[in-house]
Amino acid sequence: MIDCVLLLNCEDQSGVVHEVSRFIHESGCNIISSQQHLEELDKRFFMRVRFDITNLNCTRQDLTKNFDVIAQSLNMAYELNFSDYKKKVAIMVSKYDHCLYDLLLRHQYGEWNAEVALIVSNHKDLESVAVHFNIPYFYMPIDPDNKEAREEEIVKLMNQHQVNLVVMARYMQILTPVMLDAFPNRIINIHHGFLPAFKGAKPYHQAYEKGVKLIGATSHYANEELDMGPIIEQETIRVNHSYSVKELLRMGRDIERQVLSNAVRSHLEDKICIYKNRTIVFD
Amino acid sequence: MIDCVLLLNCEDQSGVVHEVSRFIHESGCNIISSQQHLEELDKRFFMRVRFDITNLNCTRQDLTKNFDVIAQSLNMAYELNFSDYKKKVAIMVSKYDHCLYDLLLRHQYGEWNAEVALIVSNHKDLESVAVHFNIPYFYMPIDPDNKEAREEEIVKLMNQHQVNLVVMARYMQILTPVMLDAFPNRIINIHHGFLPAFKGAKPYHQAYEKGVKLIGATSHYANEELDMGPIIEQETIRVNHSYSVKELLRMGRDIERQVLSNAVRSHLEDKICIYKNRTIVFD
Amino acid sequence: MIDCVLLLNCEDQSGVVHEVSRFIHESGCNIISSQQHLEELDKRFFMRVRFDITNLNCTRQDLTKNFDVIAQSLNMAYELNFSDYKKKVAIMVSKYDHCLYDLLLRHQYGEWNAEVALIVSNHKDLESVAVHFNIPYFYMPIDPDNKEAREEEIVKLMNQHQVNLVVMARYMQILTPVMLDAFPNRIINIHHGFLPAFKGAKPYHQAYEKGVKLIGATSHYANEELDMGPIIEQETIRVNHSYSVKELLRMGRDIERQVLSNAVRSHLEDKICIYKNRTIVFD
Amino acid sequence: MIDCVLLLNCEDQSGVVHEVSRFIHESGCNIISSQQHLEELDKRFFMRVRFDITNLNCTRQDLTKNFDVIAQSLNMAYELNFSDYKKKVAIMVSKYDHCLYDLLLRHQYGEWNAEVALIVSNHKDLESVAVHFNIPYFYMPIDPDNKEAREEEIVKLMNQHQVNLVVMARYMQILTPVMLDAFPNRIINIHHGFLPAFKGAKPYHQAYEKGVKLIGATSHYANEELDMGPIIEQETIRVNHSYSVKELLRMGRDIERQVLSNAVRSHLEDKICIYKNRTIVFD
Repeated sequence: MIDCVLLLNCEDQSGVVHEVSRFIHESGCNIISSQQHLEELDKRFFMRVRFDITNLNCTRQDLTKNFDVIAQSLNMAYELNFSDYKKKVAIMVSKYDHCLYDLLLRHQYGEWNAEVALIVSNHKDLESVAVHFNIPYFYMPIDPDNKEAREEEIVKLMNQHQVNLVVMARYMQILTPVMLDAFPNRIINIHHGFLPAFKGAKPYHQAYEKGVKLIGATSHYANEELDMGPIIEQETIRVNHSYSVKELLRMGRDIERQVLSNAVRSHLEDKICIYKNRTIVFD
Repeated sequence: MIDCVLLLNCEDQSGVVHEVSRFIHESGCNIISSQQHLEELDKRFFMRVRFDITNLNCTRQDLTKNFDVIAQSLNMAYELNFSDYKKKVAIMVSKYDHCLYDLLLRHQYGEWNAEVALIVSNHKDLESVAVHFNIPYFYMPIDPDNKEAREEEIVKLMNQHQVNLVVMARYMQILTPVMLDAFPNRIINIHHGFLPAFKGAKPYHQAYEKGVKLIGATSHYANEELDMGPIIEQETIRVNHSYSVKELLRMGRDIERQVLSNAVRSHLEDKICIYKNRTIVFD
Repeated sequence: MIDCVLLLNCEDQSGVVHEVSRFIHESGCNIISSQQHLEELDKRFFMRVRFDITNLNCTRQDLTKNFDVIAQSLNMAYELNFSDYKKKVAIMVSKYDHCLYDLLLRHQYGEWNAEVALIVSNHKDLESVAVHFNIPYFYMPIDPDNKEAREEEIVKLMNQHQVNLVVMARYMQILTPVMLDAFPNRIINIHHGFLPAFKGAKPYHQAYEKGVKLIGATSHYANEELDMGPIIEQETIRVNHSYSVKELLRMGRDIERQVLSNAVRSHLEDKICIYKNRTIVFD
Repeated sequence: MIDCVLLLNCEDQSGVVHEVSRFIHESGCNIISSQQHLEELDKRFFMRVRFDITNLNCTRQDLTKNFDVIAQSLNMAYELNFSDYKKKVAIMVSKYDHCLYDLLLRHQYGEWNAEVALIVSNHKDLESVAVHFNIPYFYMPIDPDNKEAREEEIVKLMNQHQVNLVVMARYMQILTPVMLDAFPNRIINIHHGFLPAFKGAKPYHQAYEKGVKLIGATSHYANEELDMGPIIEQETIRVNHSYSVKELLRMGRDIERQVLSNAVRSHLEDKICIYKNRTIVFD
């Protein structure tokens, strides 16, 4: 079965669901699932519809063109994604490998309808992991003086690989606007702390000092404000006074990989809308 | 805002969502949220739609009558519930009060669009709780010889109170077909164990013997097979070797009340479909 | 069985466990359980021992006096508590009752070896709850001009009731040094947010604005810095974009009561040491 | 720092903790942590003590010999393990690799004071994983006619590698008494279900049929009764009607690896006692 996901948002108004379902029905397609969300304060309406296009009665180009007419009349922002196109993912890493393994294993198990196109790193350390999983690995060292130039190279490289999504799998560099502007709302980062607490460096050390009883991890879209982009997914895990910083780091690894992978899955399944620095993540 | 929830299921077929959304739109109403589920193996389609009826352009009777035509043509089972009708809830208890307090407090906080109409008990112990919360309390003692006759009285009493939902809040009696047939899929029970493990009596003692590391609670619709009705909600909580049976009972109280109240909420919000002894619980 | 809990801390040094266990053994008593913690950085040693005093071969006064000699020689801080003394608890409330009910029900179930001696409130609203559970209720209104004087009255009242622990069960007043100094490390507060994020007022509104995917509650000892005292217990619960602030408040109630009651239990069971604004909470 | 863990159990009697702490103190050692458990019904006492042997004032042989005298006089079963000996672990696998990767990564991160000595498999599929992590891999195919003979070979091989612990990381064969008797209470298995529910084959399919709202994984010691050995660790994860069996399998992978690794860690840290088919797992 080939299906299509339509993700849209517009001002709340009567008849949107009807218009969308009529359009899908008249195109010969069948709705498999749909979800809506109304942001009450702003009267903004969000919708995700997945529909089977086996019996589509026009070309895909026409489908898109026809929907565009509706979208314009209702002043919608939208995306249409077909399941027989595999999104291309780039993974950025430094030296920690726990998130990288987790992502590559899920890729290998077929958990995602996507392809890991390349791995980019500012270190050589994890090349053997890339070789083991048979993914191209690009060594792109960063020094403070070359950062923007290097990121321009990286963007070029990613464009050559037609990358749709960049995953920072514990990539220990702060991105410049060069990368951020090239992939707006298309870069997912994992922060090893429960945001908005413990922003910045060494969050587990901060958590230890404060004596918290839970530690967390937060996955979010990267934007120009460090660790402040829209939150996609969070998790916490119970700790106590007897945990050393080393053990907090170990437990952190367990939830970081889980939280990052869940966020990546939601993105790849076209389940995330961003609105005013918050995310709507359909289930 | 008055809204209406339509809960339906039918054979999977093209155009159901379209038909439903067209109907709602043409009645002058606006969809607030909707969810679907396709039971793949059986090709059975389930849908819940909540819509605002502020601008309904016909009477409610006509709305229902019009939808009935669609439902018959598509061979649907359905329910239509309006938010300005408060469902009537009966609570059945014996001597344990933790679930009872939890339900009555949520009722008092306005967490539910429902009214606790009466409390029925086979003991007098909890009458003071009913008095405190100002709910009528009926003492209906059961002995093995009068069980069916007594349940007939209870059914009559509940019908006088126009009860839509019966909640067994640790009611320590096995119901007979008299009650079960009077409220099919309308009686929610809490079992103090993780079903299907530990059916029947003293599940915490069974869990202790077995040395499990988690204990659970399960809320389900009551049917003629003891502790085997459709599961609505479950939860587990971590325990270890150091917990006595008394402590397992304490932790059990904490999750029993939570699991039962969550199940009741889902039912009262018209989020549950039952199909082949399983539930679809929309989120 | 009458037992005794010894809670101590001292500089780490060889033989502490040996000295303590020798002392207990030579007093005719038997260790039921013990736990230790070594704060590695500061070389500070913490220990909790529970022992059966059925066969105690001296008076309790002598037991204490004898241990005092050891404690002085090893420069220990310690507490000795006997299980046949029920600690006296004061509960402070304003208008929210969910934590109050939870505490009073646990008290009634015998979950604690303690007595709720009185309830103090700056409002009259919850008096009927106190009546229902048969606990003395004292109405102590606060206005900005009388706060310290009023707290002096409250302290006096609590002393008359021999209160050992004060529980702020959503008491919506910031305490002055009058109360804080009268009960150092003896006042437990519940903050309806995951500290150190979302300090201060309306944390659920803050969480909603930020779009977090988990909300939390934190129980801590009250000290002179608002919401910054030593953390005892925390919990989080999963939320998403579809939750209104009203629903966040509802879910908040569920975890607030749980977190507060867990903290109170740990305190009443003499399981908490405080050191440098962090807690050691033995399990 | 070199430390030693003493794990013991004996009939409950006065003075055990005192005897043990005196012994440690008189050997020049310092207790870092200790835990006890009293199995109330049977009056059986369990204890784990970790102590620093930096200043041990005798040989290790003498330490052991001296303790043996105490152990005999108190009729104790015990084990003494020194931290400068790395336990040797054998991992058994078939074709699923998620638990294998998780174990090998933790090994690589230094989470355990142990060495993965070899991997044994009845298939060739995962040899490349072993090569990547630089662990010897032994292909030991099983057919119904050769099972016991093959297991004799495996036992021999493991003994050559001085294996202390066998981890069945989704090894899809039922062991015969040959293996079980060679490593009593030394073989850890992962069952992909919440035992005691869903024993045997295809537990996720069973869970799906039953419509449970949580799925689980259970790690236990293998014994002669299939999936009935002492439970070490369990975890559950929330699912709902919309999860296909394929998605249940995916979520299962996430908790299986976590539960198995936690059980292995507890074993390697000498935190587990077994008593009457239940485990005491010190924290």
